[in-house]
Amino acid sequence: MPTVTKFVLHNYWRSSASQRVRTAFGLKGLEFEYVAVNITAAGGAQQLEDAYRVRNPSRQVPALELTFDNGTTRTLTQSLPIMEWLDDVYPTPPILPEDPYLRARARALAEIINSGVQPFQNLTTGSRIRELGGDDKAWVKPFMTDGLIAYAAACADVAGDFSVGDHPTIADCCLIPQLATSRRYGIDLAPFQKLLAIETRCLALPSFAAATPERQVDAVVH
Amino acid sequence: MPTVTKFVLHNYWRSSASQRVRTAFGLKGLEFEYVAVNITAAGGAQQLEDAYRVRNPSRQVPALELTFDNGTTRTLTQSLPIMEWLDDVYPTPPILPEDPYLRARARALAEIINSGVQPFQNLTTGSRIRELGGDDKAWVKPFMTDGLIAYAAACADVAGDFSVGDHPTIADCCLIPQLATSRRYGIDLAPFQKLLAIETRCLALPSFAAATPERQVDAVVH
Repeated sequence: MPTVTKFVLHNYWRSSASQRVRTAFGLKGLEFEYVAVNITAAGGAQQLEDAYRVRNPSRQVPALELTFDNGTTRTLTQSLPIMEWLDDVYPTPPILPEDPYLRARARALAEIINSGVQPFQNLTTGSRIRELGGDDKAWVKPFMTDGLIAYAAACADVAGDFSVGDHPTIADCCLIPQLATSRRYGIDLAPFQKLLAIETRCLALPSFAAATPERQVDAVVH
Repeated sequence: MPTVTKFVLHNYWRSSASQRVRTAFGLKGLEFEYVAVNITAAGGAQQLEDAYRVRNPSRQVPALELTFDNGTTRTLTQSLPIMEWLDDVYPTPPILPEDPYLRARARALAEIINSGVQPFQNLTTGSRIRELGGDDKAWVKPFMTDGLIAYAAACADVAGDFSVGDHPTIADCCLIPQLATSRRYGIDLAPFQKLLAIETRCLALPSFAAATPERQVDAVVH
């Protein structure tokens, strides 16, 4: 099987799905080339352009371009499948628990955010809520709060220093950007002290810290 | 490690996430006990009751209860993690490709539906759209169409008889209920002939056929 010689991550500084994958790269100790896709560009969101659609038919970030030692390239999309692929191909250190039951629990936590919250806060959804005359920022808040309530309950019996046990997993890769986004939307995080303690432990690790939005080359500081 | 002696699937006939898991059970040749959770009950949706919330803090179907030979029980939630668990613990026949790259592609297809479409058609979302004065049935249609466009493009180079190659995977487990739901919403499926051909091949298999909504004990035929 050919070996990957270069990773190019097409992503955006403040995209939570992008941040998950950046974090997973850090946990694996792998380097990637950063290509910024400006999904909020005033002149037209770059992920909607034809050049990007070829890369990802869902027209979302991130997309991971793999270059192999035989010169071929391939592209992977969707943050959770990209993280699973990293764990399949570069198993050390693992970002999923070894035990199948705990692995399922970590994946379920990741999905509480990935399919339970993030779809409601993405840009397309926001614009479709505004088309109805709604306030997209207000509309998404109950999804964010309910998601964190569900996450806290769903990790209560398996959490240690991190969401599942004492090592970071794909669940933490999803949790950290979601907490930051929720904070930015003014969600009251006081009821989630256990999650905030996990956040503190995560952000003390270089892999999580280096993946945060404000550390990216395309970050815009307001 | 203890062995599972009984599976109890808490689910609903017309829930697409439930149908995915029922299909995966069929593909694995495993039996489960069916417990109906009426998510549309006139007297109050059963998945919102405290008794169910203990089982799944996200208050969604499905939830899979495992009973082990040592008498203990555990519960798994979220359709994709449940299907991944089935593949981890009962690897034959596989419902994910062996090759890591193709495995990632199958997972990405599943996510196009799981996080890209289904969140917008679920009951909670529908009621929050109606709270804005919107027509939830009309609102979800572009998400359904865009999702199928993305799915068709994303499987174009890997599809065979099924979405990825010539064997059913978790991608097909997600696609089949989504096509049926889209049809029920009046989405024009004519542009998706390749997906419809995959659907025909899937529904010719007993595992897919037995998992369809109208074949479930709690089905209500209108």
